[in-house]
Amino acid sequence: MENNKKRVVGYQGISGAYSEMAAEKFFSSVNTQFKGYESFDEIFEDVSNGSLDYGVVPIENSLAGSIHKNFDLLKKYDLKIVGEVYVHVNHQLLVIPGTKYEDIEQVYSHWQALAQCSGNINKFLPNGQAVEYFDTAGSAEYVSKENDKTKVAIASKKAGEVYGLESLNQNFEDDKNNYTRFVVIEPGYKKLEEEEGSVKFKTSIFFDGKSVAGFLYNALGCFARRNLNLSKIESRPVPNSPWAYCFYLDFEGRYDDQEIKEAIEELSTMAHEVKVLGSYVSGTLD
Amino acid sequence: MENNKKRVVGYQGISGAYSEMAAEKFFSSVNTQFKGYESFDEIFEDVSNGSLDYGVVPIENSLAGSIHKNFDLLKKYDLKIVGEVYVHVNHQLLVIPGTKYEDIEQVYSHWQALAQCSGNINKFLPNGQAVEYFDTAGSAEYVSKENDKTKVAIASKKAGEVYGLESLNQNFEDDKNNYTRFVVIEPGYKKLEEEEGSVKFKTSIFFDGKSVAGFLYNALGCFARRNLNLSKIESRPVPNSPWAYCFYLDFEGRYDDQEIKEAIEELSTMAHEVKVLGSYVSGTLD
Repeated sequence: MENNKKRVVGYQGISGAYSEMAAEKFFSSVNTQFKGYESFDEIFEDVSNGSLDYGVVPIENSLAGSIHKNFDLLKKYDLKIVGEVYVHVNHQLLVIPGTKYEDIEQVYSHWQALAQCSGNINKFLPNGQAVEYFDTAGSAEYVSKENDKTKVAIASKKAGEVYGLESLNQNFEDDKNNYTRFVVIEPGYKKLEEEEGSVKFKTSIFFDGKSVAGFLYNALGCFARRNLNLSKIESRPVPNSPWAYCFYLDFEGRYDDQEIKEAIEELSTMAHEVKVLGSYVSGTLD
Repeated sequence: MENNKKRVVGYQGISGAYSEMAAEKFFSSVNTQFKGYESFDEIFEDVSNGSLDYGVVPIENSLAGSIHKNFDLLKKYDLKIVGEVYVHVNHQLLVIPGTKYEDIEQVYSHWQALAQCSGNINKFLPNGQAVEYFDTAGSAEYVSKENDKTKVAIASKKAGEVYGLESLNQNFEDDKNNYTRFVVIEPGYKKLEEEEGSVKFKTSIFFDGKSVAGFLYNALGCFARRNLNLSKIESRPVPNSPWAYCFYLDFEGRYDDQEIKEAIEELSTMAHEVKVLGSYVSGTLD
């Protein structure tokens, strides 16, 4: 029976990764199977070839900035963005149950998580040595297997649950304004739902610039003159054309709004290529 | 005697790094001492406190895009950009002298260099295993020390010379359009040289946006209306303000040109903060 078939949603990492939390936040676990992937490329490939129903990939972090790899993959593959979801990156100091601060000698995590907690490592673990690991959830799995109280990990709450670790400090990140924005991708387009009440839509587009003076200004003018609110601009190098750039824009509204259709038509007259990456309900920070 | 004192120029990495090549391309070796650093932060710090006369740091790569860490450091420190230099990233397959393709089992390098050569690794070394190393020059040093013909490195020509390795393939990168753009930083400003003939100047600025609709469009208008040719735009997150962005612009001309002075004055009326990062002679791709 078709209705009982589980949809399969891909994320990058092993169980306990922040990407898995994003996928679980967006998709109800009923009728969903979550599947971890080694690389972003494989997720895009498997959504394209139909092995996956959806992919959930990070696109930017409020502290570190954009994840460029995924902008490049959005351009390369012909998929659609159908949702966005924000995850609060709330790092936990994960330990073998019963471990005290004074037992700790080595702190394992991804270099970015170590950097985001360096103030608290110095404060709580002045003698703790930071050791880089390939990812946060992987460091929790490693500490769990080692079962040695001198070794601890920095990872998500979920990673603590998955690998049976205790959280000795539940707010170990130095800066609490640490959010990652993920997008949900799928192969084609379902008809957009009707707006209900105050639901806000967002549209993402890609366009390829011609290298003439003022091009970007003129391109942005298509949106500014219609008072369309830009929430993000990203420039990326064009492959095989050193120092030529292509651009990604996010703005409020749906691709089938009259003003947005007109803005995109106008942009098409001045750009090499314009591609609507998708319209979707805006995620919320919580 | 003051005139005999060597200027000290910092770069990130160990000898043989592409950053060292950039520093050597910009500064004549006469009266210059080149000094390798572990991190970009330390270079900015030492230029600030006067331990270094200049720093040379990568800012963007034609394939991989911007090196965001250094944009953030340009904002954090009050230094000036006084030059730019492009380095052609021409990867060599570096081997213990006498090694043949069929001897090779492991290929060591930075993950980005491995990715940039993955086509040629498959073509020339179908059984070669790619092994990540913390940097390219470091992988050459490692292979040299191991002195084992089954292990080879991917790094610069200079790294081959420094660590006594032979280049089995001198164009091992898949895409020849691989350039890195570096900027030269120093603490203060010397008076800009007069333009000689066709020397082109470039100016880099930073500005901090107010999150109102059309802000970026209006900001770019200050330059577009004066036909100032934009060569680069970069957006970065504003710390402690999730999803607020600040911007970096490069455009042709000098900060003391009348039109550029006016554009910057106009921009100052609409932005939170505008900072001229420097004016300098444009580098060339060669």
